[in-house]
Amino acid sequence: MANAESVRLRVFSLNCWGIRYLSKHCSQRYAMLGDMLFKKEHDIVLLQEVWSEKDYLALKQKLACCHPHSHYFKSGVIGSGLAIFSKHRIHDTFLFRYSLNGYPYMAHHGDWFGGKAVGLAVLSIGSLIANIYVTHLHAEYCRDKDPYLPHRVVQAWELQQFIRHTSAGADLVILGGDLNMHPQDLGNRLLRTSTGLRDCYLETAKFDGCEDGMTLIADNPFISKNELLPFEKGIRIDYILYKVSERFVQSHLRYLCSFVSTGSPKANIYCDYMCTTNGSIPDHPFPYSDHEALTAELRLEPHTPSETQSDKKLWKHDSAAGKVAELVDIMTEARTEVKVGLHCAERMRYTATRTGVMGLALLFLELAIAAVPYLALGAEQPFPLTSFYMLAGLCFAILLTTFLLYIFKTMELKSLQGAEDQMRLAIGSLQEKLRGFPLAQPHSTQRRPPEGLEPSAFGPEE
Amino acid sequence: MANAESVRLRVFSLNCWGIRYLSKHCSQRYAMLGDMLFKKEHDIVLLQEVWSEKDYLALKQKLACCHPHSHYFKSGVIGSGLAIFSKHRIHDTFLFRYSLNGYPYMAHHGDWFGGKAVGLAVLSIGSLIANIYVTHLHAEYCRDKDPYLPHRVVQAWELQQFIRHTSAGADLVILGGDLNMHPQDLGNRLLRTSTGLRDCYLETAKFDGCEDGMTLIADNPFISKNELLPFEKGIRIDYILYKVSERFVQSHLRYLCSFVSTGSPKANIYCDYMCTTNGSIPDHPFPYSDHEALTAELRLEPHTPSETQSDKKLWKHDSAAGKVAELVDIMTEARTEVKVGLHCAERMRYTATRTGVMGLALLFLELAIAAVPYLALGAEQPFPLTSFYMLAGLCFAILLTTFLLYIFKTMELKSLQGAEDQMRLAIGSLQEKLRGFPLAQPHSTQRRPPEGLEPSAFGPEE
Repeated sequence: MANAESVRLRVFSLNCWGIRYLSKHCSQRYAMLGDMLFKKEHDIVLLQEVWSEKDYLALKQKLACCHPHSHYFKSGVIGSGLAIFSKHRIHDTFLFRYSLNGYPYMAHHGDWFGGKAVGLAVLSIGSLIANIYVTHLHAEYCRDKDPYLPHRVVQAWELQQFIRHTSAGADLVILGGDLNMHPQDLGNRLLRTSTGLRDCYLETAKFDGCEDGMTLIADNPFISKNELLPFEKGIRIDYILYKVSERFVQSHLRYLCSFVSTGSPKANIYCDYMCTTNGSIPDHPFPYSDHEALTAELRLEPHTPSETQSDKKLWKHDSAAGKVAELVDIMTEARTEVKVGLHCAERMRYTATRTGVMGLALLFLELAIAAVPYLALGAEQPFPLTSFYMLAGLCFAILLTTFLLYIFKTMELKSLQGAEDQMRLAIGSLQEKLRGFPLAQPHSTQRRPPEGLEPSAFGPEE
Repeated sequence: MANAESVRLRVFSLNCWGIRYLSKHCSQRYAMLGDMLFKKEHDIVLLQEVWSEKDYLALKQKLACCHPHSHYFKSGVIGSGLAIFSKHRIHDTFLFRYSLNGYPYMAHHGDWFGGKAVGLAVLSIGSLIANIYVTHLHAEYCRDKDPYLPHRVVQAWELQQFIRHTSAGADLVILGGDLNMHPQDLGNRLLRTSTGLRDCYLETAKFDGCEDGMTLIADNPFISKNELLPFEKGIRIDYILYKVSERFVQSHLRYLCSFVSTGSPKANIYCDYMCTTNGSIPDHPFPYSDHEALTAELRLEPHTPSETQSDKKLWKHDSAAGKVAELVDIMTEARTEVKVGLHCAERMRYTATRTGVMGLALLFLELAIAAVPYLALGAEQPFPLTSFYMLAGLCFAILLTTFLLYIFKTMELKSLQGAEDQMRLAIGSLQEKLRGFPLAQPHSTQRRPPEGLEPSAFGPEE
């Protein structure tokens, strides 16, 4: 199938579950992983949850020959956990920290301390520039009632923004990581539709591994079956996505193209093979992680200039309009989800304010009672000193906690509002683009504005 | 001078000093500003320190006719303070929050609460795509001994990263804002050299306004002369920068070009006129702000395809090598500055740890003394109850404060380390590029690696 000039790329992605002293068999698993990576010599290795820099450095040392280029992305209190190892030269890196990432007071979930982010490494692969992204989104602890859903949707929004805005100079885009979203989840649809990234699992010519490409499976000994319910067999939440960039698409389509992928004239890309581990490793007592590892074999076929020209002509307005309309739908759904988050955060901030005011009132009341003996000379101190100090301590604790909570919730609100504003603006812009496709059949006709409406009418809606 | 097809762009930038109830004459100044903007009808208005969204909304309402498109960037506790008003359609926006921005415990400086960031708005101006950036970096409170210098250098680093990585799809790049850096400051050199952005003040054909283009001047009634010392007359810290993007530069030069501007084949850009206010406004009792307002008139001249071709040939390897060498020097200097910040943060975290341990020891000591009466029955309580509770409260306060400080300093360390890693990698990559220019005379020969060195040797230096 591949012609003589085609380039083969083997990409590996794994959530390493690398919490030192807490994750089971952590150091042994890293040793196994290092041995395997050394042997398999993938072109690009994308790791998540490498929480300790020491583990990264040990891997770096072990892989120095086969993966001379690597980068560890630092962020947050513990780190972002993201690392990349590459056979190809890494020219440049960039890290984008998500504006929302759970709550510091949910310490048992720990996501906030991880400083979740998306890392970008710019590689040169032959004559091509490749933008490689690695990310890890906020975990889902309860699918039925997920308090982190608005945060994850905002993360997916920021992820697609980051990829769209930074990939214009690249020929090839690859994203690997633990998205903590099922294939049809809102954030996943938002990400794929707006960037045009394609899912290796869905595109691959040949697949080996877990049923339905699952990456968190009941057969993995580190997984408790109760966690997975109602998905008895497992779920697919780790991905390798790819696309060729639309850098050379005609000028007037350019802006739209940053939203909708249209195939590239510089090269074409195919996924020939994909595989996952399946909960156990031959000759080893346990697998590499609680997640399954993904490996994708991509094939890049550079175009000749004549092909480029004909490719451009294949561009169909109708299908583009359909995609834009679909994107408007998804964005509207995402906006609704963000609004839900906004209401929750507002309610929490209101509760914090009210509790703070009550703490203050209690403090004043206490001080007033304490002042009685001084005002009415001779009267006895009405309550014992121990209780007095404990109550005062309680009041101060309430005031401090509610103050910190107020500050934190205000920051959360600002981030949610910011994302919602940007979504509204993007929806408005896309709807205007839709009006430029007279033959289009948009999915969401009711949200499509009438033909004569001025652009400014999309500004401050609602 | 301009031909028939040239496009004129009038860009305005002002730090509004808009702290409600604290900044002097805040509402009157906004009213004045709104009137002026309404009258002058600039193409693009970039505002900083619009701390209250109400003020933004009031301006939006006032400018609805002349500037139908606008965006307010939200971030942090108070907001980023950044706003953009435009005559041209804003298609898309994106916000990047700097990873470092001062300290929450330096509440009197307040920068941390502002959530400093760089905002991007993607505009279409005729057939051109323009990326408009607005930013505000951390203030400089003391030039001789500036504890925020590493933070500002990291902000400048992240700003240039953000602009480089997001502007590949744009024809035109404009950055306006309060950089809080003098023209020759490290961060400013880093920004201009790595992005290729040109300074309107230095490039303009005609200039009206303050001497040396100063934007914080002694003649402004809101400025206390002591603040400016040793710069008696004033300083230049607000800028409008611009460039045409290098989107179409030949393929093999592409990566290097993301570091060094080389002129664009799509259009050329000139600054015909620039002006600043000079501390007072005719017929008004006070100026718009404590900063002076900047206005730049840019002229865009689209190229014909034949010009494009000849422009490419003008590309000189020698001058590119010189620029790369200069950039390596500047980045090395920036890396040194970040290391200074690293040492400070490490020292502070060590102090926090030590103080925390002492607080804990004190608490245990107190508990031990308090336990004496229970252990040796009949012995009297050795110290009064009031002191006991107050001491315990003090211990807890110390523990809490040092814990928060430890967390915060760890995050600061991670960000500084991350920036330093990225700088090291970029320097290595640039040095390798330099080896591709055999005729080049790099500035920093001693830092230039020997010809035969392998790429991997640039990985973990020091």
